[in-house]
Amino acid sequence: MSTRNGDSETLLRQPFLSSQRSVVNSTSQVAIVGANVCPIESLDYEIFENEFFKQDWRSRGKAQIFQYIFMKWLLCFLIGMIVSLVGFCNNLAVENLAGIKFVVTSNMMLERRFLLAFFIFFFSNLGLTLFASLITALIAPTATGSGIPEVKAYLNGVDAPGIFTVPTLFVKIIGSITAVSSSLLIGKAGPMVHTGACVAALVGQGGSKRYRLTWKWLQFFKNDRDRRDLITCGSAAGIAAAFRAPVGGVLFALEEMASWWRSALLWRAFFTAAIVAILLRAMIDLCLSGKCGLFGKGGLIMFDAYSASISYHLVDVPPVFILGVIGGILGSLFNLMLSKVLRIYNYINEKGTIFKILLACLISICTSCLLFGLPWFTSCRPCPPDPTEPCPTIGRSGIYKKFQCDPNEYNDLASLIFNTNDDAIRNLFSKNTDDEFQLRSMFIFFITCFFLSIFSYGVVAPAGLFVPVIVTGASYGRVVGMLVRKNSNLSHGLYAVLGAASFLGGSMRTTVSLCVIILELTNNLLLLPLIMMVLLISKTVADAFNANIYDIIMKAKGLPYLETHAEPYMRQLTVGDVVTGPLQTFNGIEKVRNIVFILKSTGHNGFPVIDEPPISEASVLFGIILRDHLLTLLKKKAFLSSPATGCDVFNKFSADDFAKKGSSKRLKIEEIQLSEEEMDMFIDLHPFTNTSPYTVVETMSLAKAVTLFRELGLRHLLVIPKISGRSPVVGILTRHDFMPEHILGLHPFLARNTGRLRFFSSLV
Amino acid sequence: MSTRNGDSETLLRQPFLSSQRSVVNSTSQVAIVGANVCPIESLDYEIFENEFFKQDWRSRGKAQIFQYIFMKWLLCFLIGMIVSLVGFCNNLAVENLAGIKFVVTSNMMLERRFLLAFFIFFFSNLGLTLFASLITALIAPTATGSGIPEVKAYLNGVDAPGIFTVPTLFVKIIGSITAVSSSLLIGKAGPMVHTGACVAALVGQGGSKRYRLTWKWLQFFKNDRDRRDLITCGSAAGIAAAFRAPVGGVLFALEEMASWWRSALLWRAFFTAAIVAILLRAMIDLCLSGKCGLFGKGGLIMFDAYSASISYHLVDVPPVFILGVIGGILGSLFNLMLSKVLRIYNYINEKGTIFKILLACLISICTSCLLFGLPWFTSCRPCPPDPTEPCPTIGRSGIYKKFQCDPNEYNDLASLIFNTNDDAIRNLFSKNTDDEFQLRSMFIFFITCFFLSIFSYGVVAPAGLFVPVIVTGASYGRVVGMLVRKNSNLSHGLYAVLGAASFLGGSMRTTVSLCVIILELTNNLLLLPLIMMVLLISKTVADAFNANIYDIIMKAKGLPYLETHAEPYMRQLTVGDVVTGPLQTFNGIEKVRNIVFILKSTGHNGFPVIDEPPISEASVLFGIILRDHLLTLLKKKAFLSSPATGCDVFNKFSADDFAKKGSSKRLKIEEIQLSEEEMDMFIDLHPFTNTSPYTVVETMSLAKAVTLFRELGLRHLLVIPKISGRSPVVGILTRHDFMPEHILGLHPFLARNTGRLRFFSSLV
Repeated sequence: MSTRNGDSETLLRQPFLSSQRSVVNSTSQVAIVGANVCPIESLDYEIFENEFFKQDWRSRGKAQIFQYIFMKWLLCFLIGMIVSLVGFCNNLAVENLAGIKFVVTSNMMLERRFLLAFFIFFFSNLGLTLFASLITALIAPTATGSGIPEVKAYLNGVDAPGIFTVPTLFVKIIGSITAVSSSLLIGKAGPMVHTGACVAALVGQGGSKRYRLTWKWLQFFKNDRDRRDLITCGSAAGIAAAFRAPVGGVLFALEEMASWWRSALLWRAFFTAAIVAILLRAMIDLCLSGKCGLFGKGGLIMFDAYSASISYHLVDVPPVFILGVIGGILGSLFNLMLSKVLRIYNYINEKGTIFKILLACLISICTSCLLFGLPWFTSCRPCPPDPTEPCPTIGRSGIYKKFQCDPNEYNDLASLIFNTNDDAIRNLFSKNTDDEFQLRSMFIFFITCFFLSIFSYGVVAPAGLFVPVIVTGASYGRVVGMLVRKNSNLSHGLYAVLGAASFLGGSMRTTVSLCVIILELTNNLLLLPLIMMVLLISKTVADAFNANIYDIIMKAKGLPYLETHAEPYMRQLTVGDVVTGPLQTFNGIEKVRNIVFILKSTGHNGFPVIDEPPISEASVLFGIILRDHLLTLLKKKAFLSSPATGCDVFNKFSADDFAKKGSSKRLKIEEIQLSEEEMDMFIDLHPFTNTSPYTVVETMSLAKAVTLFRELGLRHLLVIPKISGRSPVVGILTRHDFMPEHILGLHPFLARNTGRLRFFSSLV
Repeated sequence: MSTRNGDSETLLRQPFLSSQRSVVNSTSQVAIVGANVCPIESLDYEIFENEFFKQDWRSRGKAQIFQYIFMKWLLCFLIGMIVSLVGFCNNLAVENLAGIKFVVTSNMMLERRFLLAFFIFFFSNLGLTLFASLITALIAPTATGSGIPEVKAYLNGVDAPGIFTVPTLFVKIIGSITAVSSSLLIGKAGPMVHTGACVAALVGQGGSKRYRLTWKWLQFFKNDRDRRDLITCGSAAGIAAAFRAPVGGVLFALEEMASWWRSALLWRAFFTAAIVAILLRAMIDLCLSGKCGLFGKGGLIMFDAYSASISYHLVDVPPVFILGVIGGILGSLFNLMLSKVLRIYNYINEKGTIFKILLACLISICTSCLLFGLPWFTSCRPCPPDPTEPCPTIGRSGIYKKFQCDPNEYNDLASLIFNTNDDAIRNLFSKNTDDEFQLRSMFIFFITCFFLSIFSYGVVAPAGLFVPVIVTGASYGRVVGMLVRKNSNLSHGLYAVLGAASFLGGSMRTTVSLCVIILELTNNLLLLPLIMMVLLISKTVADAFNANIYDIIMKAKGLPYLETHAEPYMRQLTVGDVVTGPLQTFNGIEKVRNIVFILKSTGHNGFPVIDEPPISEASVLFGIILRDHLLTLLKKKAFLSSPATGCDVFNKFSADDFAKKGSSKRLKIEEIQLSEEEMDMFIDLHPFTNTSPYTVVETMSLAKAVTLFRELGLRHLLVIPKISGRSPVVGILTRHDFMPEHILGLHPFLARNTGRLRFFSSLV
């Protein structure tokens, strides 16, 4: 979607241009008179300035303003409500599905019918995985993976097709439940973020047109800005629901997801997260009475293992420091291996749907075998003489899983590996369990988790990365805790928390939000200084090696994400250096045939509108018009028989016609049928043109232009000449023109200098 | 400091301009040749683009880059260390000063020598207040108040004189200690923020030149961007040290203080706050052994009164809702009354230093009388039969203060009012004390606090608002809790926490940061949903009435703060509508006399540099040059005898010459002495001009221009003409041109429409 065309197109277009210009010239007097007569104030020009929709509502009546504000808060409330409900049902379903599976299997094990137990475990996992991958592959492939990279890219301005549709939402919820229940080492937090964003997008656009779930009174929100705001709130709600961490959710949305941040947005996201927190609490209250099946207190992750006061001193700093450093290295290694595996998976998945599903089944089979097989390799341990809970634990979660052992013995590895991920994390985080786990079991568990999480993420099913990373990190932390046992007075449970923090920091690279999420998970603020330290160290170390996991996935998916930093070589270029090819522009009053031809021959989304003499005294840039608006004009056939400005065209349109369409329903030029007669008519583009486009002079430093583009969240940036006399506009820049691939393609000599400062730039 | 001059000035300037132009014309060929010959790469042009200093270091050598990064992190570490040390010493000093005062007074009371006790209390308070107000008024008047509005304005781009100097820092620390110890109802959190910012600014600029505390190797940080970053980190460290709330501090700095926010800044602020948290913990560990006098566990505010689990249900929502609504109304009333009182105080303070000090003494006298007098009006209560702590409490903090009562009785009002603010808050927040306080005492305490905090803030001493607002809010919350006693199962201590939250929300209007600060203060995450709800309600209610307290104070001080929102009427204007008067520009090669004349006759900070034919093919905007750089050029006398570009001038300068000076040391044009001969020489401005200024076309909507200006943090915005042929630049916009006063002065008819949407705009 570059916004310039090749030479051949320009040559083709020349005849149209020249003929059209002569027509305009001959009727210019009429045009000017017409323009002066028209009641311009009566038409709301600024509706077309999507970036300035906010200003737009201020020009409306009080009732409409109130309606807008009330609706926006109501939508946030709705998003919070729906997301908390989804999050609750998700957990309820997972706990019950996986719970029943483990109860039946454990009962078989108790009766020492090991083979039957294995087959039940194996086939229920396979069945659940098969179902999840089938619906994902056949109904909504966009629901694959965590969805966080796609949402992050959307909030940066990249609208990947089909990520916010009803089928995606449906598959994301159902697929996530079945995939997580199938004992694959994948998380539900990432899918919850995508679910939240999806709910927000659908609620904001008033449901889905295709499924006739639309609310007419939501027309105000059909613009980029409001939709972006709502989706940010939805992401915050997603994390808030997944971890019961409302503040952490808000911070995650701001730190990791959002590319633009306003104080007002913080407030709104906070409101949404508060709704989630309050409703979740109410729903858990309902479940405490025992009506929710196997879903008990612990269903929603909240490992308040450290409500007791803990103490730590300067002597504990060195081991924690080392833990952070190794966590950072492991995190970056995790990112590296995951990106390699994803590349292999992409290669397999491209071969067809059947290969995708076979791959998912293969991973499920391997997982089942490992989870059931590995505990046999550890020795059974006698129950401690005075256990804090019944030993062995039967029919419920706990750390003394019997598995194949004799009565009064327990298998420590089984209580970690042959369990739901939530319960495994709870076991790892729990205090006073320093003697309950063997170093060997913990090490096996760590290695298994590390590789399973890498190989499980890429399967064709909704899959998050948070929980796998937490499990892996917690087991790694316990291993470190066991190794430094004598030199530290911190408990192993605390080491598990710090290990999880270091691994999260090394992989995801956010700091404040992860810190708050971990605090909210463990419910102990006294851990704060230690967690802060570990996160900072592991992030710093990991940044020396590669980018964060979401950026890696985003790059692998080819989403053109615009970085905050301008790359160093951009300082050596001016804007004029990256503007390529001749530009396509429209005259203020343009022939229908020209418009149709240009729209058909290019995929550009914005076109400068230029007034030439004698409409104006010189060749002047009037503004920029969007493809969508041109298509609407063509569809409504607001044509003039002669090239004059006509007032009556205004009455044909309402603001709704120019509202941003949902992602599933966009007009296409091919769908518009025009007769030969209509093709020779004219359109007055003036009322539909955004008259205040942002402009830069062609000698502007590219680094400055990219900052402007990024900070203001632009889609098009017009380049005007330094020295007047030529055309009033020399080019138009879009997101793609700022991509390193494009710039380095134009100026290959710059390539040798890039990259060497990646590490440094992340530190600044 | 408008950037245009009146007609008279222009008329005066004409002869210079014309003479100079003719000279340039005659030697143009030389100039062009010279420009081509000069080794431009060797000079670091971009050092002059302060906004792009970040890009600048990327063009440096690896060693310098490493030095820069290492130094920046080291500076953050230093800031964290110094601020935590200051915070610790501050608390240590206050606890001991105020502690000794209360111990001596209480001993007198025990001996029933009431009058002597009163005089000791009275005169120690008066003496401390007098000392604080004397040093503030005489040494550093800029240290008055909390300093948060000034720092906030600085981070918005307004550099108020003298706010970051060594005397200010000194007075802020010492004044805050003595003023808080003098039992005035003022806080130490606000001054800590200013202290943190001040430490950051001084550390960043390498100490103070005047006091010969400079580090030469800090030259990299003498630019706006780095200084702003460091000051943001310093503010975060201030809150972190004041409340022991590192995450809350970071969020406060981002939500309330910073006008520009980047992900990297979040990370750095987080690091600084982590250092504060870790060091504070270490220092408190040292004090636990009892070597810090009266400074015990509770010295640094941390009211972990709710470590026990609490439960609340839907039935508790209505009273909490009402609490939030009334808290919002009270908060906005507080803001309103405070602004009125500040206006009166300003009037008094303007009369002279002696009046300022008398006012402070008057407030101290009233406070002492109230604090000592009011407990006599409540009835003594018998000690509860089975108290959780000794009753009455003697020689330490606690809720059973004896005051004038008999043995086995206690005075509940005295334990709140005749106490340090920290201890009062701890008493209010503590659980299981529902029967220990009477409604009447609590109501008296609330009213007293409400008015004392309003009247105490404006005195000429460092004074924060956080603690007074928390005390007032907590007492209000307890009152509500007592009134709804039967309809709620929440404890009164919890109501106090919620009341404090509602009052903070109603007055300060931040949400996420306050929520986290309160969570970190109370150390109980289970309160989260309730606190979120209360904050949202009180903020919403209060926003209906007036602005937040810092904005009100900032407006009262006349600081030109640039709001995030563009005002509605700005949409009806174009940039051209606010550009006034003729513009002052320089030629690329300009006569010294012209430069001196213009610098003397105007206070402008930026001047467009224009190349005219035959230096260029047409009249072309070359860039913008800053006043500071012109002054440096004049001071270094980099003159040319003829109007040609000269390469040798480059060698006269180092990057350090153009570094941003500390606020206390700025060059003035009057200080530069030039001979008549020198006045007739020329300067080649090209190498010192920022060649990529941001520009807007004159027809750009003003609302869009202000967004551009605000989001990119600009100081100057050049306006270029829509139709070419005239001068290449039609005006220059600065912060002042976007101020409502300026715009409404030019277009008075817009004034009638403003203001009606204030409430709505805050909700969007």
